[in-house]
Amino acid sequence: MKSLYYDKNGIQLIDHTPKPAPGKDEALIRVRMAGICRTDLEITRGYSGFEGILGHEFVGELENSIDSFAAGTRVVGEINAGCGHCEYCRKDLERHCLHRTVLGIVNRSGCMAEWFTLPARNLYPVPDSVSDEQAVFTEPLAAALEIFEQILIRPADKVCILGDGKLGLIIAMLAAHRHEGETLLIGRHGDKLAIVKDRTAVMLEEDIPGSYNKSWDVVIDATGKSAGLSRAMNLVRPRGVIVLKSTMAESEPLDLTPIVVDEINLIGSRCGRFAPALDLLSRGVLPIGRLIDSIHPMEKALEAWERALRPGARKVLIRFTGNRPVE
Amino acid sequence: MKSLYYDKNGIQLIDHTPKPAPGKDEALIRVRMAGICRTDLEITRGYSGFEGILGHEFVGELENSIDSFAAGTRVVGEINAGCGHCEYCRKDLERHCLHRTVLGIVNRSGCMAEWFTLPARNLYPVPDSVSDEQAVFTEPLAAALEIFEQILIRPADKVCILGDGKLGLIIAMLAAHRHEGETLLIGRHGDKLAIVKDRTAVMLEEDIPGSYNKSWDVVIDATGKSAGLSRAMNLVRPRGVIVLKSTMAESEPLDLTPIVVDEINLIGSRCGRFAPALDLLSRGVLPIGRLIDSIHPMEKALEAWERALRPGARKVLIRFTGNRPVE
Repeated sequence: MKSLYYDKNGIQLIDHTPKPAPGKDEALIRVRMAGICRTDLEITRGYSGFEGILGHEFVGELENSIDSFAAGTRVVGEINAGCGHCEYCRKDLERHCLHRTVLGIVNRSGCMAEWFTLPARNLYPVPDSVSDEQAVFTEPLAAALEIFEQILIRPADKVCILGDGKLGLIIAMLAAHRHEGETLLIGRHGDKLAIVKDRTAVMLEEDIPGSYNKSWDVVIDATGKSAGLSRAMNLVRPRGVIVLKSTMAESEPLDLTPIVVDEINLIGSRCGRFAPALDLLSRGVLPIGRLIDSIHPMEKALEAWERALRPGARKVLIRFTGNRPVE
Repeated sequence: MKSLYYDKNGIQLIDHTPKPAPGKDEALIRVRMAGICRTDLEITRGYSGFEGILGHEFVGELENSIDSFAAGTRVVGEINAGCGHCEYCRKDLERHCLHRTVLGIVNRSGCMAEWFTLPARNLYPVPDSVSDEQAVFTEPLAAALEIFEQILIRPADKVCILGDGKLGLIIAMLAAHRHEGETLLIGRHGDKLAIVKDRTAVMLEEDIPGSYNKSWDVVIDATGKSAGLSRAMNLVRPRGVIVLKSTMAESEPLDLTPIVVDEINLIGSRCGRFAPALDLLSRGVLPIGRLIDSIHPMEKALEAWERALRPGARKVLIRFTGNRPVE
């Protein structure tokens, strides 16, 4: 089968990767569409040390029936595969299992291939009302919803989101949808900010007035840069909350004094639950399609990658079905 | 009057500082004893940019009656003086007032002098059962208690404290006193750890077993070093809490990836309320006197400072009364 493979020699589209065999309780999934995430790009810069088939954002269909799912069921899936036995797995927190594998990130081949495997318990059927192009956003939307699972955002809180990348835009759409109080998205690209300006207040970085310092109850850093965290520390009020969504490949010099002096609560936030994300998508309340940059056939996956690397690219998708497998 | 003064020329004991005049609603306090804190040492390395009379840990007596306090009342005092009108001041959070001054740290002359001033509302009378040598620990003990005001530590939680400096030792005493579950103090000095080893489990840094990684519910970093935060990120469990007590004068290279991946809650913690600290001191449940290194007369304040700078010094105190003022 074809796959998009990364190792120290770089990224290659390989024609003859072996078709995977599902393990016990695993499903074999035929990929319909995959999305390129910033984490994928970071991996190819050394983040996480992963080598292998890339990708963790997908919508696919079951090759065979498994559990209560019929063959052909369209599915998305949580990307963390836990041991199933530890305290985290028992609490439905497989995403924190110390022995987990993570699709396309930690010790598990990713979804940028014609087929891949995941534990059946990770899978969620996709409602008919959700298109492939929408379903592939389940994972990043779940990551955005995770914020609301971790912290209490009170109805009157002032919420500021930093970063107009894909995740920042999704968080901004979501916050504007579900939060009653003021929301503001701050970014560096007028064209990106324009995507959500009918939903929330937006502002260019260079326009931030000094009066905004120490005035926001919640600041969500989705910039992917340590400068984002520094800006968040400026904007958040004393005893406020910073949600850190940015992972970086390198150590950066950081002065965390404001965290201590202002007793700021900095909370890291990663993956979230799929069920509420699918529910949101099926209700059609978020204009998620606006985030799509382009859709490329599998044969042009490397072109898709190049496009995703362009500064300012929106979500680049790769379509796999329609391309019948070459085993 | 005499005072211990810091500016870009270094620290000096000055004989003829003007005796301060209290402003509206301020008390004039004759200092009985002052303590040298790590923050004072950091200030003389550039932290906070403060220049002036140093010091914020004290016990003194009122020069004149004010409000309900009689002249001669022994007092300690919260070091943050707020504007009295803003949302923080109205919530008894003067320590986060954006316009506050801070005794010996931000725009307010410190307590290492024969007299100094503070707003009367900052003052707390010291019970007769609390000696000067104990009362001078009210401020650092309040800073330790602040942790328990900020986060919920559940009875069965495993709590690890990093750093066997003065604050780390106070936090360890306090945690061992009020927390039911496991507590562990990790430090670098056997003699420091010995101070509290009848109260809590202790361990040298180099003896930390690999099995401790990602296993502690709460890790409190009181090391004053960025390496402490890195160690805390190793030790805390996924979705656990790190309390950051360390402020540093410089930016340090830091990789915050574990904060995001493990969804760690990092909370900065600074000053606390004095009333519960005085209550604890009056009950005599903490062996706080063990933390005293030495007590020096005001005339030898510079020697006291040198002693406080020695690696491994416990709390160095300066006694002011008995030395009658030279105005």
